[in-house]
Formats: sequence, C-alpha cells, structure tokens
Amino acid sequence: MTQTPPARRRPPRAHAKGENTRAQILDTALQMATRTGLSSLSLGAIAEHTGMSKSGVFAHFGSYDDLLIAVIREYHHRFEQEIFLPALQQPRGLPRLQALFDLWLERVAREIDAGCLYISGAVEFDERPGPVRDALVALVRAWQQALSHAIALAVQEGHLPASTQPGQLLFELHALVLAAHHKARFLGDADAMPMARQGFERIVQRTLHSRAPDSATTISPIPMTATGD
Amino acid sequence: MTQTPPARRRPPRAHAKGENTRAQILDTALQMATRTGLSSLSLGAIAEHTGMSKSGVFAHFGSYDDLLIAVIREYHHRFEQEIFLPALQQPRGLPRLQALFDLWLERVAREIDAGCLYISGAVEFDERPGPVRDALVALVRAWQQALSHAIALAVQEGHLPASTQPGQLLFELHALVLAAHHKARFLGDADAMPMARQGFERIVQRTLHSRAPDSATTISPIPMTATGD
Repeated sequence: MTQTPPARRRPPRAHAKGENTRAQILDTALQMATRTGLSSLSLGAIAEHTGMSKSGVFAHFGSYDDLLIAVIREYHHRFEQEIFLPALQQPRGLPRLQALFDLWLERVAREIDAGCLYISGAVEFDERPGPVRDALVALVRAWQQALSHAIALAVQEGHLPASTQPGQLLFELHALVLAAHHKARFLGDADAMPMARQGFERIVQRTLHSRAPDSATTISPIPMTATGD
Repeated sequence: MTQTPPARRRPPRAHAKGENTRAQILDTALQMATRTGLSSLSLGAIAEHTGMSKSGVFAHFGSYDDLLIAVIREYHHRFEQEIFLPALQQPRGLPRLQALFDLWLERVAREIDAGCLYISGAVEFDERPGPVRDALVALVRAWQQALSHAIALAVQEGHLPASTQPGQLLFELHALVLAAHHKARFLGDADAMPMARQGFERIVQRTLHSRAPDSATTISPIPMTATGD
C-alpha cells in the first residue's frame, strides 16, 4: 500500500534498482492487462516478458492480488497525468469540463488497440468481490468525483445553470465515453469519437437551453483558452 | 448454422428428445455465460451442471465455437422475444422507440445479477477475432438496425424532426444503456435506471427542441398507448 518514493529523494542504489525493476514489471503487466484483461495476467507470462524468474517478479509484490492492485494504481496514475493534470491548466468551469471530456476521449481513442482497464475491469470483476474489485471501484469513483467537481465549478462560474443535476450530467458524459469505446473497439466503427464529441456538445447546449428558453439562440461557445483561473 | 426446427413440425420422438436435451444444455450454458462470461464456459462445467457426460454435451454441437455461437443466438432470440416483439405492439414512431428503450432497460435491470452477454461479450472478445466474435458483432448490429429502423419511423411519422441524425440518436441511446449497466452492475448504484430513463427523456426533448426553437415550450409527451398503428 506504500507509494513509490519520488526519485528526488535519492534512495540508495540498491533501493533505486529495486524500484526500477518494480516499475518495469508494472509497465509490462499494465500493457498486458490493457490488451487481454487484468485477469489474464499470470506471474509466468510477466516473468517471460520481463526476462525474470517468477519468484523474481513475485518478490516485488506481496501477493497476486497486490500485483493486480499495483497495476490498477499505475493505470490510474497515468490516467491522472494524461487527463486530469492538463485539464487543470484550463480555466475552471465549462472550459475545464470540456478539456476533461476531450482528453478522456482522446485517451480512449488511443486505447482502441489496447482497451481501457476501467471498462474491461468492470466487466471482468463485476462478479468477483475482493480487494482487486474494491481498488477498481475506488479509482473509478475517484475519477467520477473529479468530474463531478468540475461540473460543480461550471455551475459556480455560471457556465451551467443552477438547475444542473451534476449526477445526471456525469452519468450522460460517462455514457458517451462508454459508447465510444464500445463502438470503436468492438464494432470497429470509425465515427465513434466524433459522435461522442457531438453528444457532449448536444448535452451542454441542452443544459444551457434549460436555463432560459428565450436565450436558447444566443449561446456562443466558451473559448478553450488557457488564460486565467 | 441450421436453425432448430419449430416444435409444431412434430419431429420423431428421438429427434424431439435430442432437441430437448440441446435446449436444456443451451439454457444451462446461457445462464453460466451471463454470470461469469462466455469465455469461462467449459464442456466439463456444462456437463456437471446438466448431469451429462462431456462427450454427451459435445455431441449436440459440432465444436466448442459452435456451442458458444449457439449460446449467443439463444441470447439474441430471448432478447428479441422480450424487447422487440412487445415493442412492435406499440404504435410506430416515438411510442415504439420509447417501448424499445424501456424494455431494453428493464432487461438490463433484470440482468444486473447476471450481466448482459452483449456487453460482457464485447469486452471478452474484442481482441479475439474469429467466428464467435463475428456472431456477437452481427447480432449487436442486427439489434442496432432494429433501433435505427424505429428511429427512422419516428421521423417518418413526424414525431421526431426531419433533421434527426438516426446514427447519432442511436449512439446516445446505446450510451445510456451501457452506462446504466456499468453503474448498476459494477458500482452497485441504485439510481442507474432512473438516470438512463431521464437521459432518454432529455435526448428526445432536445431532439424535439431542435425542430423549431419557438415551439420548445409547447411539446407534450406522446402517450404510450397500444392503440392503432
């Protein structure tokens, strides 16, 4: 459960080497998990891909479940780095919400060949209670809370009306991403991402429409500039 | 690939017994597949659950893939019986489209304990090309075509505006069902189905709004009566 210490702490050489090996194992395991599923991970296959012994792999993790949980956390860490942190550069409100959605969708588009661990993991572990499922649920909820917060800020900034139902809006945005993943990855359709983007536009426009019927035709899109906050 | 002949053809007793046994195997296999996934099906487990020998199970299907395909077709058959046929009793147009969506969602709600084969199958087989994946894709597409047809009829009947983009609308409705399944089955949230229903209402209202901005406040819901066609 301990976090990897940041490199700037200059750990002793042996410790640093251990961390590097652990990071290398996690990277390999994560690639395998996004391609063929978390539950397809085996110590043997990871050992083969990293050129280590099974016991060598095992030594870096307390148990098989701990290995899976570490893989899920590494996935979440990258998810945050690629989506959450860049979106924070956008002004709070609708620009930031839009950035979160766009970056999320871009990540799903890049993941078409590999698959999203949160989506595949939800199916793989929906019937398997235990620490791995708990870790997946906790991180999906953490991501949803970040989105909810962005929606609340958009209401606070007056970009979305006070009548906005954050839970409903979050549900509908998540729905678009799930559908884009399904349509692109399973059906192989090229128009999945444009459809999800159009869905976002339509949902936001509709939410704005609900503010005041007579202002429906006067809405102009908020520019996605990185200025001010 | 041959279909089971309808019972009314009165096959000879031995044939009928064979069909009954096959139906019993399929029923057991379908229950197992919806619970733990198509790819978790094994001849051994099916044999144990049906009280038959492995070779006895195998004799009813040409191959393991043919067994999986038969399970998928049986799922699709039930899907049609529970959703498509009852919806056809509704007047064509928005009432029928709404019935398709409502019945689909009701099925997903009932499936929370077991899971939807189309959703789990999409994740299980997204990286496994072959006849099983082809069968899944073909039946998902067949279902989407039925929904597209219902949307086209709703436009034709004047219940939705001529500017409706059927593909986009289909994408957004499918998104809501995927999100409801994820939220209810994986996160265990009780409000998943009401949110999907509200999403449907909002999408339809928004589509109606797009017809003529000044008529936005005059729309009344079309009653879901079973009269006329």
